[in-house]
Amino acid sequence: MVKVGIIGSTGYAGQELVRILLGHKDAEIVWYGSRSYIDKDYSEVYGNMFQIVDAKCMDDNMEELADKADVIFTATPQGLCASLVNEDVLSKCKIVDLSADFRIKDVATYEKWYGIEHKSPEFIEEAVYGLCEINREDIKKARLIANPGCYTTCSILSLYPLVKEKMVDVNTIIVDAKSGTSGAGRGAKVANLFCEVNESFKAYGVASHRHTPEIEEQLGYAYEGNPLLINFTPHLVPMNRGILATSYANLTGKYSYEDIKAVYEKYYKDEYFIRLLNKGVCPETRWVEGSNFVDINFVVDERTNRVVVMGAIDNLVKGAAGQAVQNMNLIMGLDEMEGLKMPPMFP
Amino acid sequence: MVKVGIIGSTGYAGQELVRILLGHKDAEIVWYGSRSYIDKDYSEVYGNMFQIVDAKCMDDNMEELADKADVIFTATPQGLCASLVNEDVLSKCKIVDLSADFRIKDVATYEKWYGIEHKSPEFIEEAVYGLCEINREDIKKARLIANPGCYTTCSILSLYPLVKEKMVDVNTIIVDAKSGTSGAGRGAKVANLFCEVNESFKAYGVASHRHTPEIEEQLGYAYEGNPLLINFTPHLVPMNRGILATSYANLTGKYSYEDIKAVYEKYYKDEYFIRLLNKGVCPETRWVEGSNFVDINFVVDERTNRVVVMGAIDNLVKGAAGQAVQNMNLIMGLDEMEGLKMPPMFP
Amino acid sequence: MVKVGIIGSTGYAGQELVRILLGHKDAEIVWYGSRSYIDKDYSEVYGNMFQIVDAKCMDDNMEELADKADVIFTATPQGLCASLVNEDVLSKCKIVDLSADFRIKDVATYEKWYGIEHKSPEFIEEAVYGLCEINREDIKKARLIANPGCYTTCSILSLYPLVKEKMVDVNTIIVDAKSGTSGAGRGAKVANLFCEVNESFKAYGVASHRHTPEIEEQLGYAYEGNPLLINFTPHLVPMNRGILATSYANLTGKYSYEDIKAVYEKYYKDEYFIRLLNKGVCPETRWVEGSNFVDINFVVDERTNRVVVMGAIDNLVKGAAGQAVQNMNLIMGLDEMEGLKMPPMFP
Amino acid sequence: MVKVGIIGSTGYAGQELVRILLGHKDAEIVWYGSRSYIDKDYSEVYGNMFQIVDAKCMDDNMEELADKADVIFTATPQGLCASLVNEDVLSKCKIVDLSADFRIKDVATYEKWYGIEHKSPEFIEEAVYGLCEINREDIKKARLIANPGCYTTCSILSLYPLVKEKMVDVNTIIVDAKSGTSGAGRGAKVANLFCEVNESFKAYGVASHRHTPEIEEQLGYAYEGNPLLINFTPHLVPMNRGILATSYANLTGKYSYEDIKAVYEKYYKDEYFIRLLNKGVCPETRWVEGSNFVDINFVVDERTNRVVVMGAIDNLVKGAAGQAVQNMNLIMGLDEMEGLKMPPMFP
Repeated sequence: MVKVGIIGSTGYAGQELVRILLGHKDAEIVWYGSRSYIDKDYSEVYGNMFQIVDAKCMDDNMEELADKADVIFTATPQGLCASLVNEDVLSKCKIVDLSADFRIKDVATYEKWYGIEHKSPEFIEEAVYGLCEINREDIKKARLIANPGCYTTCSILSLYPLVKEKMVDVNTIIVDAKSGTSGAGRGAKVANLFCEVNESFKAYGVASHRHTPEIEEQLGYAYEGNPLLINFTPHLVPMNRGILATSYANLTGKYSYEDIKAVYEKYYKDEYFIRLLNKGVCPETRWVEGSNFVDINFVVDERTNRVVVMGAIDNLVKGAAGQAVQNMNLIMGLDEMEGLKMPPMFP
Repeated sequence: MVKVGIIGSTGYAGQELVRILLGHKDAEIVWYGSRSYIDKDYSEVYGNMFQIVDAKCMDDNMEELADKADVIFTATPQGLCASLVNEDVLSKCKIVDLSADFRIKDVATYEKWYGIEHKSPEFIEEAVYGLCEINREDIKKARLIANPGCYTTCSILSLYPLVKEKMVDVNTIIVDAKSGTSGAGRGAKVANLFCEVNESFKAYGVASHRHTPEIEEQLGYAYEGNPLLINFTPHLVPMNRGILATSYANLTGKYSYEDIKAVYEKYYKDEYFIRLLNKGVCPETRWVEGSNFVDINFVVDERTNRVVVMGAIDNLVKGAAGQAVQNMNLIMGLDEMEGLKMPPMFP
Repeated sequence: MVKVGIIGSTGYAGQELVRILLGHKDAEIVWYGSRSYIDKDYSEVYGNMFQIVDAKCMDDNMEELADKADVIFTATPQGLCASLVNEDVLSKCKIVDLSADFRIKDVATYEKWYGIEHKSPEFIEEAVYGLCEINREDIKKARLIANPGCYTTCSILSLYPLVKEKMVDVNTIIVDAKSGTSGAGRGAKVANLFCEVNESFKAYGVASHRHTPEIEEQLGYAYEGNPLLINFTPHLVPMNRGILATSYANLTGKYSYEDIKAVYEKYYKDEYFIRLLNKGVCPETRWVEGSNFVDINFVVDERTNRVVVMGAIDNLVKGAAGQAVQNMNLIMGLDEMEGLKMPPMFP
Repeated sequence: MVKVGIIGSTGYAGQELVRILLGHKDAEIVWYGSRSYIDKDYSEVYGNMFQIVDAKCMDDNMEELADKADVIFTATPQGLCASLVNEDVLSKCKIVDLSADFRIKDVATYEKWYGIEHKSPEFIEEAVYGLCEINREDIKKARLIANPGCYTTCSILSLYPLVKEKMVDVNTIIVDAKSGTSGAGRGAKVANLFCEVNESFKAYGVASHRHTPEIEEQLGYAYEGNPLLINFTPHLVPMNRGILATSYANLTGKYSYEDIKAVYEKYYKDEYFIRLLNKGVCPETRWVEGSNFVDINFVVDERTNRVVVMGAIDNLVKGAAGQAVQNMNLIMGLDEMEGLKMPPMFP
């Protein structure tokens, strides 16, 4: 039984980790970390867990936790994991960091986009970017996993085969993404009140959202390591869960639907969590809600010779907690899908 | 492995049966019935099941199904189950009927409130009302289960101990209930369009809703078999899932919070799916979403000497498919909770 | 042109006052008070008012405001108006207080339910409860109006004729009310975040909500001044605007639908803002959204000899800002309906 | 007083025409056309209009209507207006057609994208495309107005100055648009049920939506009449009203924020209904809800040398009924803004 500690267990992603791990037959949560609710019953913070989780919230003590847990998840704001991790901790247990601290290899890029100093750059090199379908083998050997961002997971997975196979002009990539409001976190802000979000739609972070360099870096690796620049625009949707990323790119030749489909199948045919939809079916976030699936499809626009790619995920599952558990399964040598095969819940 | 057939598998309750049974280790669905979608892939109707369910929709052939299945669920409009059931079918397999056909013992009452003729009154007597926490032992021996209605499950379970122990004046019971829109079904009606339901709230079926006699009959049994009349008012909430029933009744004496709490514990202390919340905590539908839980709490109003009882369920789970599976587990001798322990999903 | 000052113009009710007054041909806003946003452009706080309102937010200076305005609206938390009002201010201008400070005649009752000390009890007696359809003539002569609460407006207006005419047993009155989330205000609280409210339904303040004594006092006046006690339960609906109050009471005799309809018509037939719906039509909040209407209807339940009354309002209009403007029109001798005849907006 | 007839008054756009015209001091509705509800009270179909509109629904008789009305609005499915209009009708009254019948000058293009035969191509030439801010002078002289589509209004107005001034490479334009569900109409379809739309997000009509050629044609006129091709992708948002269009294009030079702002001001500075937001403020649909405003802003992405333009409208107002009334005002010589200055309603 893998012993799991969660730092930041009372955020939305943290609570989703709890929900998923409760259904995991080889893992057991031994530490519900939450600096904001120390000593409070976890089920007072999340009433869904009443009579299911019988534990109190604990402080963010990674040293102590490293002695108790085999795997630590950090579902915390940027900077916290980097400030707590050290060689001693990593020698005792594995870390899956759900924040951005170890996602970007270039410290300067991280510090510029995030506006904070990186407290442990010495671990960036060894950290593995935990996009399981792409980096599976490296993940299995890692001690420190940088769990991908929600928008980035959706964007990268939906574009990866096209970039890898050079079927699109990488300098024309535009990702127009839309997320449910749980992506904004559980902080008490006027902008996220029900009446402010409900019945409205907006873009935010235009040309400045932090997931931009993360997508660019990973797509760059797919593009033989060459740098590329994209436009990425996130939007806020009045719903709880779900991300849809609609991406556009110029095709590098005259490709048919079948040509492109073949490339997606080349990379994803055997991936359980990636569902390539039937021709003509557009991904919808409701069909992946509560699950670890990524639904992908595309349309070739012969008029403009562009491809329009759509990817849908549940931002809290494949975009956060689900992928984190998938990473845990890989680094601990468990069945990669354990705890993650729940079907999407609808409606 | 229990072989299960579902007649009406493409309604919301039918699809929820599918979702739950996919996580049930001792059951297997062998028949996805849906008269509206015969020969269509089930996953074309419900995209969440893409690459999970590989089956086509079948006609409503109960005779054929009885040869193939150990248990048949009928998640169909009123009247259909009664028109299909017969001794031959019941001799071969068990039936859990999610419609109202066998819930009401008095045929005249059924025919009056439902406005249709009952086609197989001869089976009403043997049918067991499948409210598991109340009728567990009878259910275990039954061939034909009348699975309770969504509103009724919530209303009866939240009032049962008070009526049973005569702590309330049964002639003062008022149930003001509120349901998410999935309770209205998947039929294409203007009244249930997104723009008609969203951003609005209304009562309907005032003093005439069909769940009224069902609640009265069951509470009457709890009241030593004496008849009683209540007011029941359902309301439509702009959300997908969930029922909250707020009930009012005059207390028959001066009872303290502790007095009443003791009575709830007497009946429900060992019931896994019934959660008696801590003092002062109001049930909220979000905390039971996707689960088989019933959350119950109450407030004693000393000013008026009334008790206000609140119960919350997921109408598609404890109010329909979850309870149906709980009934199946009981009649098939399986662990009552198998397939039903998923924690509520939030947000 | 009536000069209007608004203290608390950046709350939801304050902003609704602005929206309504912009369409009022005899009034002009001269003061946008908002302690939280002093010196900030009003249209930065409410983007809908960009290029419509060209003003900065001002401090809560009632003395200064009294010199500039003919009418002051206080759309502020409980206690503020009582702490600012004095004889000098009232000698210069009229006040319409949207808080609860002057609604309850008995100071002890106010202080008990609101938990704060009343700072100017000397003005309670002269304050007129601004329920226009009931107290019209008194309002016309008032200097200080206690604008009714949202739940109370809906509850009182829907029950008033029945109580006045003694057609119901006043000791059996139960009001089960449901409100959109704008009623919770614009404060940054976790409980009011989108993901916490959306897709959920709950009761709150059970047997303890502050609107209870207000309803009781006003219905008591209708009942020849005799005290009465009711049960009042508010619920939170995942929508922006709207209140539906479902009320129950035992009838004092055998009354037909027509008997009761006649009584409603007796009191409300000529009231523009009260719409008595056709038989069988249930009020829905969507049909009053954005308007000053109160939609009322009822059902006689012959089985239990109870009446079920339903009332629907827009909590920000008839439940707050609209009624406040109606009061202003009355005290300033303007057409009572000026600025308030906008039809409900749907969808 | 202008006499107005509405064919299709019970669709969402038709009802919005009613709402707006009720506040128009120079217009009066004389015909509430609705083939589906002939002889039914209009206020039975739309409860918000109870005691406001006292009229029955009429058949689609354009001949008779032409004798009674000065202006006819056709808020009907594609093809109907073209099948009813003739020289006799046009000689008696003006027509504002809210369908697509007269928007596209090339009949073949219309017939290809809409899949129906055009029944009166002889009037296409004279019809004026009613985008008021662009074609104001032509509109004033017209008999037949092709009222623009909702997506197109938003898309064209937000891109027009950039195309007109050749600041963007027109072959790189991508419009990613998102609409509230009222845009899908009031037809009873499973896909538009509350539970199907709520809590989900999807694209539809990818590379095939009918508003594509309309945007291309109008932007082509702005581009000195040269043809251009764009990508246009509509998405469905779980909210009632509102469109946000996020557009991308490569800049043709190194333009600063101020350069581009100057161009927007050149064209829109004096347009009341177009609000150019302050730097850094993203348009949000909530800020235009219920109003005729178009909120526009943009971000220059120096990294990619693209401009990201955002436009927000209320699809039922500026995207349909509001613009139709604006057109009516122009063709009838009334104040262009009459009836249309209502501030946006929030929340």
